[in-house]
Parts: sequence; structure tokens; C-alpha cells
Amino acid sequence: MSTLREAGHAGPESRGGSIAALTSEIRRNPLLWLLVFVPVVLVAQRVRPDAHTLLFVLSVAAIVPLAALLSRATESVAARTGDTIGGLLNATLGNLTELLIALAALRAGQYVLVKASIAGAIVTNALFMLGASFLLGGLKHHRQAFNAEGARMLAALLFLATIAMLIPSVLADADLPAGAVKLTHALSVALSVLLILTYALWLLFSLWTHGELFANDAHGGADEAEWPLRLALITLAAVTVLVALVSEVFVESVQQAAKTLGLSPAFVGFIVVALVGGAAEMTAAFSAARKNRLDLSVGIALGSAVQIALFVAPVLVLLSYVLGPAPMDLEFWRGAVGMMIIAALTASLLTNTGRSDWFIGALVVAVYVIFAMTLYLLPPRVV
Amino acid sequence: MSTLREAGHAGPESRGGSIAALTSEIRRNPLLWLLVFVPVVLVAQRVRPDAHTLLFVLSVAAIVPLAALLSRATESVAARTGDTIGGLLNATLGNLTELLIALAALRAGQYVLVKASIAGAIVTNALFMLGASFLLGGLKHHRQAFNAEGARMLAALLFLATIAMLIPSVLADADLPAGAVKLTHALSVALSVLLILTYALWLLFSLWTHGELFANDAHGGADEAEWPLRLALITLAAVTVLVALVSEVFVESVQQAAKTLGLSPAFVGFIVVALVGGAAEMTAAFSAARKNRLDLSVGIALGSAVQIALFVAPVLVLLSYVLGPAPMDLEFWRGAVGMMIIAALTASLLTNTGRSDWFIGALVVAVYVIFAMTLYLLPPRVV
Amino acid sequence: MSTLREAGHAGPESRGGSIAALTSEIRRNPLLWLLVFVPVVLVAQRVRPDAHTLLFVLSVAAIVPLAALLSRATESVAARTGDTIGGLLNATLGNLTELLIALAALRAGQYVLVKASIAGAIVTNALFMLGASFLLGGLKHHRQAFNAEGARMLAALLFLATIAMLIPSVLADADLPAGAVKLTHALSVALSVLLILTYALWLLFSLWTHGELFANDAHGGADEAEWPLRLALITLAAVTVLVALVSEVFVESVQQAAKTLGLSPAFVGFIVVALVGGAAEMTAAFSAARKNRLDLSVGIALGSAVQIALFVAPVLVLLSYVLGPAPMDLEFWRGAVGMMIIAALTASLLTNTGRSDWFIGALVVAVYVIFAMTLYLLPPRVV
Repeated sequence: MSTLREAGHAGPESRGGSIAALTSEIRRNPLLWLLVFVPVVLVAQRVRPDAHTLLFVLSVAAIVPLAALLSRATESVAARTGDTIGGLLNATLGNLTELLIALAALRAGQYVLVKASIAGAIVTNALFMLGASFLLGGLKHHRQAFNAEGARMLAALLFLATIAMLIPSVLADADLPAGAVKLTHALSVALSVLLILTYALWLLFSLWTHGELFANDAHGGADEAEWPLRLALITLAAVTVLVALVSEVFVESVQQAAKTLGLSPAFVGFIVVALVGGAAEMTAAFSAARKNRLDLSVGIALGSAVQIALFVAPVLVLLSYVLGPAPMDLEFWRGAVGMMIIAALTASLLTNTGRSDWFIGALVVAVYVIFAMTLYLLPPRVV
Repeated sequence: MSTLREAGHAGPESRGGSIAALTSEIRRNPLLWLLVFVPVVLVAQRVRPDAHTLLFVLSVAAIVPLAALLSRATESVAARTGDTIGGLLNATLGNLTELLIALAALRAGQYVLVKASIAGAIVTNALFMLGASFLLGGLKHHRQAFNAEGARMLAALLFLATIAMLIPSVLADADLPAGAVKLTHALSVALSVLLILTYALWLLFSLWTHGELFANDAHGGADEAEWPLRLALITLAAVTVLVALVSEVFVESVQQAAKTLGLSPAFVGFIVVALVGGAAEMTAAFSAARKNRLDLSVGIALGSAVQIALFVAPVLVLLSYVLGPAPMDLEFWRGAVGMMIIAALTASLLTNTGRSDWFIGALVVAVYVIFAMTLYLLPPRVV
Repeated sequence: MSTLREAGHAGPESRGGSIAALTSEIRRNPLLWLLVFVPVVLVAQRVRPDAHTLLFVLSVAAIVPLAALLSRATESVAARTGDTIGGLLNATLGNLTELLIALAALRAGQYVLVKASIAGAIVTNALFMLGASFLLGGLKHHRQAFNAEGARMLAALLFLATIAMLIPSVLADADLPAGAVKLTHALSVALSVLLILTYALWLLFSLWTHGELFANDAHGGADEAEWPLRLALITLAAVTVLVALVSEVFVESVQQAAKTLGLSPAFVGFIVVALVGGAAEMTAAFSAARKNRLDLSVGIALGSAVQIALFVAPVLVLLSYVLGPAPMDLEFWRGAVGMMIIAALTASLLTNTGRSDWFIGALVVAVYVIFAMTLYLLPPRVV
């Protein structure tokens, strides 16, 4: 959610011209120097369309700063439009990068990659981002506290979403009669609508009827001047287009590049895509943990996982009927479902006391390493 | 457990004649007007034994008020026989309706329906009754508190029962050698005895050695005058016979009616039977939640689920050796086991803070809707 | 961990001569009178190498007192070498008996027995030892409290280990292409290294950086005079050799004896071996619970389960490359994985309030009885 505001240094900011504000931001934040790779990758795709490994590396280097810029622009629009509309914006556009990458894969008909990137983003956010925040925060502060109430709700939402995603996968294993494909699709659409409705109720609850329970999270990042609305809106629009363009290069090159680099497709889909898409949020979450503002870290990590599970994933299922070559369902690889359930359970069990230290963080990261290691060793044909 | 006392209005009551008390009760409580369907369904069965859909609808309309009357009579006997014997009575006869319906199905040899109605009652009570209580209570009261200690114990009991029911289903999937049927039956009997023993220990614990932990639940509903013992006992006996008669009509007609109405047998067994059998308890639980007495709602919902899992189900297994055409085992359809485990885990995770609001309720109901939706879409041959 | 100090009577102790101290210990502690079976079993093996049932019974009778002596010696060395080194010693040698039995089975190539004894020890410690401590303590004391923080951490560690052990078993079920055996072995080695690393981090955390959180456990048993270092070291060395020798007799005789006694191999591996190997710790844990020092009981029960899962099991995998006839992997029978996951979840759910009573204990023991009963009834070929 909040990213650059954390990554950059707080300080006086010129509000005179939009361009001046933007360039000052870029000068202050080394991550944004990677923006130079955006034109490079777009040119490289024209000149060397078959250099998959090169295009893969360049597109990764370009997506990371664009995602950071996108987050910063979303935050600024949100800050300038009041608490409720701002909260809604953050809640819908907070994972715009993940959505744009998945959309590129959806339009290319690469449904295995779409699903792997959804499951991978959920697991990476709920385990790696949360665990590394605990670990990095705990190495600096002996023992940290956070709002267990908010974490508990987010973990419960994640648990609900994993149950929804478990069902089609379990049914696929039962010996269904002919016509089962239609059943899976009907069920996936119904589950998607239910997930989006639940997400809408969650926004109603956390932004409106019971907002006071989550007050800490909402105002957590307010220590930096926001951009003017005009600049934020223009940046939002322009960077969205750029991320969409680079995502297409990324999706086209990632499979070939994985083969060249000796990585299994499962590892690429789950781990690499998730780390690339979430790099901006991670910078923010880790920085907040070091500053002993763990509420913010937990909110970013679990909030992001919830957003992908209850909003991005079902929206992709529904959009597949319009944009994709064929309808996409919610039937995940069983291993992916298993990992999501374990991630939701781990988040639930480990956040219920509202206290953390470096060892709890190390444990959560260890669970993630177990998954990453398994995916790395997995032969190509399993997923 | 307590039902009519909640559904009806509290007020002065004539204790002169038993009949007067009963008719005054009926006059005050609109639900009991449905009692008119009791003679109607019994006559209709003689006259039109093949009108399955009509008989199904009539028997549902007759069972609901009978179940309410049965609960009220059990409560009154319990109230007049002291805390411990009363507690025992409530604990054994609290789900008499469910038991009578299941017995009718057992005697007809419809073991799939018996098992579906057991699993469905557990899931419906632990998810729908609990969740809707949170939801309805939370819509009226901003934030509600309940005795987390009691909820935690009941959820733990439910968890134990689901583990016991998981085992035969898992073993059925292993490639067992010949003679495995005998093994499943031996195991089912042993597990049933263990479950009943554990339930007896639970009664010993909650009514005797540690009764003070659960004091709130026991005296929760004491705001209405009880019936005289004589009336209560006669009503109990007479209504039991009537429920048994109507249950037979219900069990005979439900499958054909489901086919006509386009419902899958799984949906009927899990959802329809569970909602019909539990309607009386639900009225009581929801009414208590609206009155901000959530301890009572949680006690009714989880207590009812525990009673079915640890008492009704194993008693049916043991009775099948006497009453059924063949021994029944504890091997459930895997989907049913999965739903019961998720229900127990959800109840456990969501009740451990002892606080609730409308959103937690909506989440639990959403899990139930996911299950109901899946069962509705399921093709006939899967369960 | 602490055993004889609990089992024996506290009192003045002659520190003059090592032999005097040892014989006084033996005289005071009836359990140690069983030491007479040590020479008996070693002689019997020479004289009657085919009397499997006799050898099995004698070796069990000999291992129990040896394990008690081993624990006492480890404790004494630990007490004399300071908190940190002592903690490390206890953490590595605390389950030396289980390790030696498993090593004997490993060298004999009986990998099914090794794995069953690992899984059985985890389940027995986390369910039976913990539950029976709650039960026995609760029957004497109305309601007991313990350090929930420590229990939570140990349960989390156990949860991590069961996830690690779940993965190879799940992969084995997927239709892997040829070369999958190599994959399972590579994965098992990687997981073993990760588990040992996590265990090392846990020691760093609990003994060094956050030792104050677990202070109660460490000094729990300090009510008895320790042996002199010299005596403790000599006893440790001598008894280790004796346990190793008797373990070989035990491993050779156990399968044949089981057949004669009509026990399934699964029951022997999971239940009998685990109870024999853990008898010394159980004496200590139960005695502490009766003395209302439940922190100590929980620490022994869960600490022992964690030690086996994160230290003994991975060390055996790595040692199999040196000592075994072939490499051993971490792929467990699915039923064993299921029992370990349920044990970890149960421990996690039931210890998070830090309070217990006899009923919670009875519930945990009931889960264990369900498993034992199933294993007892299981036909031979399933595991």
C-alpha cells in the first residue's frame, strides 16, 4: 500500500510544479533510478524479440520502480480524496501491479501462470512479507506489539478465501460425470461473486461501521507530504499504461527465460512473479517494521494478501469471460491450495497475541523457504 | 435447547390447568399455529401416499412447530427437576427432533441420508446458527461480548469429534485388504463408545466439577414461567410420538420431492433437513443474540453441534445394530468430513477472543453459503 | 528432560564418592531396580537368540531404567556446566534414548520402524504426555496455569516441522516422472538442514536473546542436589553404550514379538516404542503436574516433541548417508503425517490460554486414544 513515502526520506517538498515534485521524488529515491530500464526494455523488445532471458531481466528491472511509483500515486490520490474514498482507492488499486501482470497473462491465455501468480502473491505476502517484517523489526527492537484485532480479521478473511479456492480443486479430484467442466465454471463464477461481495462488506466494516478498530493502520504513514492531486492522477494513468506494456514483455519472456536459467515454471510463477510484483510493498512493510510501526507492516502484508485473494483473483475470473480466449475457473493446483491454507493458518496462529520477536519472524520465513525450496526442486510437469 | 421461552413473549401465565397453559402458549406463539399441519400431513399420507412433493412440504410445516413444542417441554421438565438432572435432560433430549428424523431414516435403511443429516446438522449449527447469531446481534449492537471459555471448550469437543469421524473415511481410501469392512465397523463402534464416554465426561465437567465456568449459560433463559411438570411430561411423550410419525412421512417423501424440485440429494440431506430439524433452536439463538445475550446464542449453536457429534451420531451407530437392516459405520463422505473439520476450525478460530461484531458473523455465514452453493451445484452421483 | 530428580525423593546426598552417590540414587529410586534386567537381556540374547518375545519384554524392562539414568546424568552435567552450555546439552541429549533406539533401527535398515518411532514419539509427547499431565494435575488442582508464551512457541515449532514432513509425502502422491526418488532425497536433505538450522535459532532465542521469557522452565527442577561432574560424565558415557546395546536387542526382537503378541507393526512402532523411549520423561512430567508446576510439564512434553521433530529426525536423515545401508528420506506414511499435524494443531489450540483443567487433559488423551485404537485395529500391510 504505502511504499515510496516509506522508502524515500521525509523532508520539505516543492509543491510548485508537478514535474518538479516528481523529479525531486525520483532524485531522492534510488529505487526510482531503475526507471531508466522502462524505455530500455520497450526498445529491446522491438530490436531483439527473441532474447528472452535479457527481456525477462530488463522487464523485472523496469516493473519494480514502476510499481513503486504506482503505489505512491495511488496513495497521494487517496490522501487527497478523504478517508473513505481514499480507503476505497487503496483497497482496489493497492495491488494494481499484480493485477496488470495477471491481466497480461490472462490475455495471452496463460492461465497456469495467472493462477500461480495469484497463489504465489498470497503466500508471499502472508508468509514472506509478514515474517521478514517480524524478523527485521525484531532484530532492532527486542519485542514488538501490533493491533491483534486487525490482524485477526485479515487472517480470517484469508482463511475464508482459501476455503473458497479449495472447493473447485477438491471437486476436480472427485470422479465427476461428464458436464463437470460446466459445473466448475458455474461454481467459480458463484464463488467469485461471493468473494467480491465479502470484500465489499469488509470495506464497509473497516472503513465505515467499525473504522475505529483500525484507526492505527489508516493514519500510519502520514509523515510525508503528499503529491498534488493533478500530478498524482496523471502519474497513475501514465504509469498504469507503462506497467501494462512492460508486463506483456515480462509474460512473454518469463517461461523461456526460466527454461534457460534452469528454474521450474512453478518456481517462477509462485516466487519470482510474486517477489517482483510485491517489491514496492515489501520495501514499505520492512521500513515500517524497522521504525517499530508493526501495525503498518502487518496491515500491508496481510491486507495485500487479502486484496489479492478476495478482489484480484475473482475479478480475473470474471474478466476472463470478456478478455480471455476462454473462461478461467478457480480450480488451483492442489499444492497451491495447500500452501495457501497453511499460509492462512500460520498467519492466524502467529498473529493472535499481537506481539512478535525475531524468532517468530524467522519461523514464518522458514515456512516460506520450505515452499520455495520444494518449488525449486519440483520437476517441470507437476504443477 | 431453550426455544419457545425465547420465541414467545414473557408474561404472567395461568398455572391452573395444564390444557389452559398449553393453549395459552399456542395462542401467544404464532409458530405453533403451524401445528394444524400435523393432522393434515398424517391424513394426506393415507389419502395421497404418492404425492411426494406435497407430503414433503406438509411434513416440514408440521415438524417445525412440533420441534418447538418438544424443546419447550424438555426445558420445562429440566427446570422442574433441578440443575443437574435438568442439565442432563437438556443434554440428552436437546436434539430429540434431529434424533427422531435420523431414526426414521435409519429404520428405512437410508444410511446416506442419516449421515448427511448428521454432518449437515453439525455444519449448520456451528456455522450458520453461530454466524447468523453474530450477524443479527451485531447489526443491533455495535460490539458484543461472550464467554470465550465455554466457546473454546465446545469448539475443542467439536474438533475431537471431527477427528474421530475423519479416521474411518481416511482408512476407506487406503487400499485395505479384504476384511476391511469388518475393520471399519469395529473401529466405528470403538469410536462411538469413546465419543459417548467423552460426552459423559463433558457433562460431569460442565454440570458438576467446573459448573461455575459455565454459570451464564445455564441460567440464561430464566425469564419465563415454566410449565407444570405433569403438563411438560405429557407433552414430551405425546409430541415425541407425533414427531416420530411425521418424520417417517418426511424421510419417505424427501428424496422423490428433491428430484421433483430439482435439488441434489446432497443439498437436501445437508441443508434442508438440518434447517428443518434446527429451526426451533435457531429461533431461540437469534432472539438471544438480538437481546445481547450472546452467551446463550453461542451455547445453543455450539452446544447443539457438540451434542449431535458426540451423542446423537454415536448413539445412531450403536442403535443401527438393533434397529437398522444392517450395521451403520462412522465412515462419512470425504466432502462431509472436510466441511465438519472446517466448521470446527472456524468456530475455534473465531470464538477465541470472546468478542463479535456483524462482520465476523457475515464471514461465518459466507463460509456456510460456500458449502450450500457447492452442494446445490453438485451432480447427484457424487456424495 | 529432568527425570530422576523428580522421580526420586529429595534429600541430603553424600558427595564423597561417585559410586556411593550412584548406589544411593539407585537405592532410593525403585525404577532403577529394573537395572537388573540390563545384564539379563544381554545374556539372554547370547543364550536364546530366537526367543523374540522374551527378548522384547526384557529389553523394554532394561531400557526404561537406563533412560531414567541417562536423563539424570545429562541433567547433572548440564547443571554443572552453566545455564547456556547446560541448556544446549539438555537440548541435544534430552532424547538420547529415542536417538539410540532409532540409530539401532537405522543401522539394521529398518527405515519403516525408524520413521514410525519418530512420528510416534512426536504424537505421544505432544498428545499423551501433555494431556495426561493436564489430566493428572487437574484431578489434584481445580485449575492450573502455565506460561502460554513458551507453549505457543513450542507448538509453532512443531507446526513448522510437520509442514516440512508433509511435503515429501504429498509429492510422493503426485504422479512424478522418473527421477523422483532423487528429488525426494534432495528435498529431504534440504529440509533436514533447514530444520536443524531452525532448531539452532530456537536455542539461540530461548537460551540467549530472549531467555527471560522462558525463565520458569529452566530453573523448574532445581530442588535436588546434582551429581558431581565426574560421576555424571562417566554415567553418561557408560549408560549410552548400554542403551545402544540393549536397543539392538529391542530392534531385532520387536517385529517378531509383535507378530506373536498379535500387535500390528504400526501399533508397535508408534505406540510401544514411543512409550518405552519416553517413559523417563513421562515420570518427570506427571510428577511436576501433580506438584502444580505445569510449566515444567508443558516444557518437557512439547520440548521433547520439538526436539525429536527438529533435531533427532533430521539428524537421522543425515546420518543415514553415513551409517545406513541406503539414504533415508523424510517421506512419512500419510497417516503418520496426518497424526502429527493434528497433534501440532491440538497442542496449539489447547495451550493458547495458558490455563488447564482435568477435562482439557481428558480431551487431549482422547485424541491420542483414537489414534492408538486405529493403529491397533489396522491390518499389517497398510503402513
